[in-house]
Amino acid sequence: MSKLVIVGTVAFDAIETPFGKTDKILGGAATYIGLAASQFKVDGAIVSIVGGDFPEENLDMLKSKNMNLSGLEVVKEGKTFFWSGKYHNDMNTRDTLITDLNVLADFSPRVPEAYRSSEVVMLGNLHPLVQLDVIAQMDYPKLIVLDTMNFWMDSALEDLMKVIAKVDVVTINDEEARQLSGEYSLVKAAQRIMEMGPKFVVIKKGEHGALLFGEDDVFFAPAMPLREVFDPTGAGDTFAGGFTGYLAKTGNYSYDNMKNAVINGSALASFCVEKFGPERLLDLTNTDVHQRIQQFKSLTQFDIKLT
Amino acid sequence: MSKLVIVGTVAFDAIETPFGKTDKILGGAATYIGLAASQFKVDGAIVSIVGGDFPEENLDMLKSKNMNLSGLEVVKEGKTFFWSGKYHNDMNTRDTLITDLNVLADFSPRVPEAYRSSEVVMLGNLHPLVQLDVIAQMDYPKLIVLDTMNFWMDSALEDLMKVIAKVDVVTINDEEARQLSGEYSLVKAAQRIMEMGPKFVVIKKGEHGALLFGEDDVFFAPAMPLREVFDPTGAGDTFAGGFTGYLAKTGNYSYDNMKNAVINGSALASFCVEKFGPERLLDLTNTDVHQRIQQFKSLTQFDIKLT
Repeated sequence: MSKLVIVGTVAFDAIETPFGKTDKILGGAATYIGLAASQFKVDGAIVSIVGGDFPEENLDMLKSKNMNLSGLEVVKEGKTFFWSGKYHNDMNTRDTLITDLNVLADFSPRVPEAYRSSEVVMLGNLHPLVQLDVIAQMDYPKLIVLDTMNFWMDSALEDLMKVIAKVDVVTINDEEARQLSGEYSLVKAAQRIMEMGPKFVVIKKGEHGALLFGEDDVFFAPAMPLREVFDPTGAGDTFAGGFTGYLAKTGNYSYDNMKNAVINGSALASFCVEKFGPERLLDLTNTDVHQRIQQFKSLTQFDIKLT
Repeated sequence: MSKLVIVGTVAFDAIETPFGKTDKILGGAATYIGLAASQFKVDGAIVSIVGGDFPEENLDMLKSKNMNLSGLEVVKEGKTFFWSGKYHNDMNTRDTLITDLNVLADFSPRVPEAYRSSEVVMLGNLHPLVQLDVIAQMDYPKLIVLDTMNFWMDSALEDLMKVIAKVDVVTINDEEARQLSGEYSLVKAAQRIMEMGPKFVVIKKGEHGALLFGEDDVFFAPAMPLREVFDPTGAGDTFAGGFTGYLAKTGNYSYDNMKNAVINGSALASFCVEKFGPERLLDLTNTDVHQRIQQFKSLTQFDIKLT
């Protein structure tokens, strides 16, 4: 069991999908990552920032999930980062309605002393300079995983390239992989991104699953076909949390074990979308997750005798 | 080894993709289905129609692939069905430029006497009344597989519903499954379609793979991630030919064996898109196919110890 450092937003989200609408509820990349990783009982630290309006009960909930919050700065007089979005009917696209950075505008990450020796670092989507700052505070991490998005490609590409050069794994969605690499074929896109530094690339295709690329290898995990996708918010972060949580738990950073990590990430993401926000992750049991992984096995495993 | 009846177009196609452009080349659903099925050395009969302009060498090529052509009508004074299309840059969408039905306008299918007892029937995309006519000519087929498209949903829904009620498997793409069922969720769409008669539904998602639904089961085969997709024409028909060819070869129509059939269909389709038209299928060896199936294994198989 390795320690895990998670950096990312802890936020309020207001979400509208064809199934309903929420007021301000708990959200943020680090929240989803932490909740997913907690499924593996890892010793994780969330490095983030919130305002004085952030409810104590949310902090208590994260602590109860084995998340160390000494790197979660609370700015008493500030307001928590707020995002609001509305999904289209197909659930694959959404409009951002509001982005209030609030306390996030002046976020200077502090990795707690006790976690600087963690083996695994999950850099959730944030400004590349914040991500670089976290890397600089780590001693000798064995695995740094980066999540990012097109916003930083458009506004801070040079900084982003510096982070990419320092990480072991990039997780990125298909359109963003195409934008970053300039290649339409995802196989070529992943190769280009690996040339930028990382040894592994995970391309997230939402309802179409996820591809894991290594030097000469490719592995695919489908998304679980569901009767209903209720709210996709946080699914990518939940995937990243399941992926890094599983790797931290097993302490094995080989390509073969990353395949298992991708399946675990996909299983957790498939729960995330079943309810609004992180709700479904809160009461998830080990048995739930194991059953879902069995479903992934019957979804994908076959036995052809070649004659 | 069971016999296989294939009904569908044998045609000329003119194709434009971002990689180039062809003159009139060999095409048609039954051509792709037959070439894919021939990989399993099945005894197949193609039921179709061509004009006097159809080259003898194409007929010889199909015969050399173990395809019986006594149900392929040649109308000396007529012209062969012609389709022309242009793919967009993403290769997922295309515009039809020309559809000349020609001899297909008066096609009345005749299943050769010797093949009326075939166990497997593959109904390629054609007017539902032609498909019904073929079913009526069969003795006691054990497996009827139907491919269809949105064109018939728009123009001949009542007839299409009659065919669907009589078949065992429907293969259909994701958008068409949604249109036919009125459900956005593919899980619900497949359930609705099974309520129309078939015991199994295969939903083809192009570059995103294929889903096989049975009563309470679902299986997923990804599309092989390729460096380049050269021309998607015929990939769905090649899938159907690989699927039914494998089932005819093994004579086992269980859900478990259909999983293997879906993988074989996906493997063959992954070759089809590597060159223009059916070219890549012509010289495909058993070794090629076995290697590709091994690649599908390493793409999807994992081994998680649940603790």
